[in-house]
Amino acid sequence: MPSDSSPQPDASARTPGTVRPGGRTARTRAAVRDAVLSGLVENGYPGLTVEYVAEHSGVHKTTLYRRWGGVEGLLADALELAGEDSWPPPDTGTLGGDLRALAQEIVDSFTGPAAAAGPATFIAAAFQSARAADALRHFYTERFARCAPVITRAVDRGEVPSGTDPGAVARAVSAPLFLRLFITREPVGSADADQAAEAALAAARAGVYVRHP
Amino acid sequence: MPSDSSPQPDASARTPGTVRPGGRTARTRAAVRDAVLSGLVENGYPGLTVEYVAEHSGVHKTTLYRRWGGVEGLLADALELAGEDSWPPPDTGTLGGDLRALAQEIVDSFTGPAAAAGPATFIAAAFQSARAADALRHFYTERFARCAPVITRAVDRGEVPSGTDPGAVARAVSAPLFLRLFITREPVGSADADQAAEAALAAARAGVYVRHP
Repeated sequence: MPSDSSPQPDASARTPGTVRPGGRTARTRAAVRDAVLSGLVENGYPGLTVEYVAEHSGVHKTTLYRRWGGVEGLLADALELAGEDSWPPPDTGTLGGDLRALAQEIVDSFTGPAAAAGPATFIAAAFQSARAADALRHFYTERFARCAPVITRAVDRGEVPSGTDPGAVARAVSAPLFLRLFITREPVGSADADQAAEAALAAARAGVYVRHP
Repeated sequence: MPSDSSPQPDASARTPGTVRPGGRTARTRAAVRDAVLSGLVENGYPGLTVEYVAEHSGVHKTTLYRRWGGVEGLLADALELAGEDSWPPPDTGTLGGDLRALAQEIVDSFTGPAAAAGPATFIAAAFQSARAADALRHFYTERFARCAPVITRAVDRGEVPSGTDPGAVARAVSAPLFLRLFITREPVGSADADQAAEAALAAARAGVYVRHP
């Protein structure tokens, strides 16, 4: 699921012990995040250095080390910042419509020439950094949780059984697209998005995602 | 889908122009493959070198360069060799049983301590090498194609509609597991395998994977 480019820091989401600059320093954090992203796109995670981020953000190296600890911390914070956008899940009036829109958003976010670089580099970095993997898990957990209203509304409309797990449906519609993009390395387009949505819908209707106590 | 550890080179599968040593040199190829795998596990793709492979396979560096061209060629050939096993898809008597077995095999192949390293490193390398990505796509295309009898039998038994695309069903049962393993970085176990199988079954029964002319 895509994130827009205007992060909206949410004070209530702050983790104790995490450095979370606000106000004047929010600009610094965004500049650092932009430098991390361009570094990842240019050189990949193995090539990302604090020196590069300092040079491209205008923030002094010693400040970067003090606030973010190093490359892994910079990467984790950039992903955390990406998760602080205001993305809402689709609301088309039917579950099928919502799932198709969701699937199409995923396809769009990874197939545009520039859009593809950002999220894909985080996924790649998670293979090499446990902290990046943690940040990625946190990012997607939060994204999938935001999709809950899609399922709540579908239950209210009687489209899927009561007790359907929203997170399982969100994962189901995403999974076939991520498989093609990053595992089997196959092309992905609107037909794949529609099929992923139809499959998640059929499974949800059949009660596959009903949570058992 | 897992590959066993005893590759069985198949002469009929040889690609024109590809160096495919047979007979005495099959042992060399296997030794080189083993060295590539241990190098990937130890150092990851960015750290894999022809020097390492030479040292750990006992094959001279100049031979490695001559036959495989370099690191990317070594990696692609190791993956090709992994695809030359004799893996058969499950045959339990029902589509649900076959899909559950298939899903469980995927979970097992990535969650064992040693088993996890091999396939995961190929997936990681594909982020950094276009040739590794090509080899990975080829590997999975062939694996999914081997699952065709599972669907053919299910169509014959009247479990799913005629015209159901076997490759789409094989991808569907795999996708939620790979998503958790490599994208969202969540734990994966038998309950996830069963849910992936049930979801693929429900979608297949509903006709989601019927090929349209």
